[in-house]
Amino acid sequence: MSEIEHRISKRALNFPDNPIRGLEILAFEVRNKGIKVIPLNIGAPDTPSPREVMVSVSAYLSERDHVEYGPSTGNIKLREARSRFYKDKLGLEIEPENILVTAGASEAMELAVYSVTNPDDEVITPEPFFPNYLSTCYKYDTKFGVIQTRIEDGFHIIREGETLQAAYARIESLVSTKTKAIIWSSPSNPTGAVYSNEELELLFKVAKDHNLFLIADEVYRLLTFDGGVSYKEGLVRAPSIYDVVPQSDRSRVLCLDSSSKEISFCGGRTGYLILDQFLVPYVLKNASVRACPNMLGQGAVEGIDQIDPKYFLKNQQELKLRRDLTYKHLSDMKDIGVTVSPKPPEGAFYIPFDLGDEISAENFCRWMLTDFPRKSGSNKTVFLTPMRSGKGGFYLDETKGKSQVRIAYVRESSELVEAMDIVRSAIIAYKNEDQ
Amino acid sequence: MSEIEHRISKRALNFPDNPIRGLEILAFEVRNKGIKVIPLNIGAPDTPSPREVMVSVSAYLSERDHVEYGPSTGNIKLREARSRFYKDKLGLEIEPENILVTAGASEAMELAVYSVTNPDDEVITPEPFFPNYLSTCYKYDTKFGVIQTRIEDGFHIIREGETLQAAYARIESLVSTKTKAIIWSSPSNPTGAVYSNEELELLFKVAKDHNLFLIADEVYRLLTFDGGVSYKEGLVRAPSIYDVVPQSDRSRVLCLDSSSKEISFCGGRTGYLILDQFLVPYVLKNASVRACPNMLGQGAVEGIDQIDPKYFLKNQQELKLRRDLTYKHLSDMKDIGVTVSPKPPEGAFYIPFDLGDEISAENFCRWMLTDFPRKSGSNKTVFLTPMRSGKGGFYLDETKGKSQVRIAYVRESSELVEAMDIVRSAIIAYKNEDQ
Repeated sequence: MSEIEHRISKRALNFPDNPIRGLEILAFEVRNKGIKVIPLNIGAPDTPSPREVMVSVSAYLSERDHVEYGPSTGNIKLREARSRFYKDKLGLEIEPENILVTAGASEAMELAVYSVTNPDDEVITPEPFFPNYLSTCYKYDTKFGVIQTRIEDGFHIIREGETLQAAYARIESLVSTKTKAIIWSSPSNPTGAVYSNEELELLFKVAKDHNLFLIADEVYRLLTFDGGVSYKEGLVRAPSIYDVVPQSDRSRVLCLDSSSKEISFCGGRTGYLILDQFLVPYVLKNASVRACPNMLGQGAVEGIDQIDPKYFLKNQQELKLRRDLTYKHLSDMKDIGVTVSPKPPEGAFYIPFDLGDEISAENFCRWMLTDFPRKSGSNKTVFLTPMRSGKGGFYLDETKGKSQVRIAYVRESSELVEAMDIVRSAIIAYKNEDQ
Repeated sequence: MSEIEHRISKRALNFPDNPIRGLEILAFEVRNKGIKVIPLNIGAPDTPSPREVMVSVSAYLSERDHVEYGPSTGNIKLREARSRFYKDKLGLEIEPENILVTAGASEAMELAVYSVTNPDDEVITPEPFFPNYLSTCYKYDTKFGVIQTRIEDGFHIIREGETLQAAYARIESLVSTKTKAIIWSSPSNPTGAVYSNEELELLFKVAKDHNLFLIADEVYRLLTFDGGVSYKEGLVRAPSIYDVVPQSDRSRVLCLDSSSKEISFCGGRTGYLILDQFLVPYVLKNASVRACPNMLGQGAVEGIDQIDPKYFLKNQQELKLRRDLTYKHLSDMKDIGVTVSPKPPEGAFYIPFDLGDEISAENFCRWMLTDFPRKSGSNKTVFLTPMRSGKGGFYLDETKGKSQVRIAYVRESSELVEAMDIVRSAIIAYKNEDQ
């Protein structure tokens, strides 16, 4: 090892592992060997983007001969369209000046965490959580605390049979003088839970009583199958933090949003940070370091308010079918030791399940890529996400989630059926081998 | 002020101002009043992008019905094309596995600073510097030190008439046990200086002797008018850090690069971090939090190795003409107290100049947007960048650079002539008013 290699920063050296993308390079190599790898590891929907979106980019480019910087806030045309989309399609009163365009919700999250916490301040979140919350807090030296949720409660923050008072007391007991914010996703990544108005009110009450920020990650709001709110033209969305927080308390709320999941535009890296006016100048100074969000992605989605609601409805219906199918297959694996929540998750496109028998999900997911195709004599396998991977995971406590797997049902039904059959036989084979 | 407003983080509250974009909203408002604002504040070239680039995006989209995530490393096709571009067009032996695609050089810089410094470690840089270096270090709690350069030396790090030994001693004296890296841009933003091989060797020697990383920002390398290196087909580029660092010391080097300036693709947010293999796994964990670089930008530039060298040559010639024109106009303002470096800057598209008479450049640049159009009876003005703005600037010491302005000659010659006339009369008017 050369002398300079010792000079890498400790923070880089100890960066949390990414359980979702950690096996990406391995999967790439396996694919190169001619093995078909069905990617159910990452939340990348395969449903088509609206035709208008794909066409807008070309239109955007045909109007210019080069691609200039835009404003750090994001383009005003997009911010206005997004505001109309919120108001007219979703019933959320959000003004253009409260919307900053970001490089996906990931950047929105970074800006949010940076702006509301100092080093050693704390953010709390329902666990299991989206691992990038932890990584982002790690990156900015922010402490991370968890509100435990359980598979038997469908990962809801109010437990089965629990009173509101008891849930409040349980969550409040986690708040310290260092706590600055609560962050959560609903519909949830990785649990698929859609929080009810009652649950959102509970989070708001804790935040109000302890003067905390609320960081609501609502990127999956249009993928809600149960427990949603109907607004116009039959469009169903998850309850939003803006449904329960009065205007006078809006300054407490930062909302992460994105066009990634709603229109299958993950690679366009176009997201949004919705925030109160008082935060805007400070967040903008930080955001201005990256100049502007990419203009091509912005050009693509600047007609978001014009997308026919039927597009979203169709996606919802398609995803609901897949959810039911995947959930049924996983439930049927009870005989081989698999546990899922008692009811299908209400939204997003994830289902967490437990392999049981203290099986290492990380080893199993890796084995599925490396050994399974060879041993099964099949040239197909499935790429899944272990909920614990080295120093990273969906749980803070490194001893938790070790036997859990997250599946993203982001392929069409026939491929999902195939994938679920593979998963079933892989679990059986792995358990036999393990003994 | 509501109780939550006091809870904003100190780091957000004290974030350095952005002198380049700080007046952006004001300029937007002025434009809305019907005033023509010539934007010479930001390094956004107006020369056309190669036709192939504009067409590639549409081709990319026509091949798919939605936009999926790509790998966190960036697309292999682009990394391979970029490597061929370096090797075949620029004579730089850089392999695809040492290239990570980033959201512009800005993200490359963030990843670099994070990976080589712990909080309170220090990075040093020639001053005046690109303000985003300071902001990035601020963001990651990294200290920032400067190597002073002077207008009379054309802002070179080896001063006029200085021996190599003296320059080495001067720079070395700035290195402390906390110093982890030297960062610089060449061609330089904001000075336009192109460092000679001798200067790069000097930086390398300091780094080698003190076990430091070298963070070379080479985004302007193809905008080199004097002091460049010819490689193939007449293409001229600035000397690169890779010209002077032997293979055995490559692990010390991180290079920031971008397609923004080289092909007028600023808004495409497609940049590169070139780094040694030992750093890749750690940087990737960090980068994986943002999933992947935007796929549209990547799709656009994945044929970079196929661009006809004549394209770059033509740009170079055009920019050289503008440089000469702008420099001449600024030199001619000696009679109204303006100072520029004794020779025209060798590269990039910036010229710093001093207004003299302790005039506040910040006030002047603001006044040009607000008062000048009204007072001059003209409906045109010029947007310039003050080199000191509140808590931000191109100098670390807040007392320095106050009367300095950076001009970016990013408009065609006829508009530049018009702009320079406006600048001249504005300076005269402002000085008269000021007295």
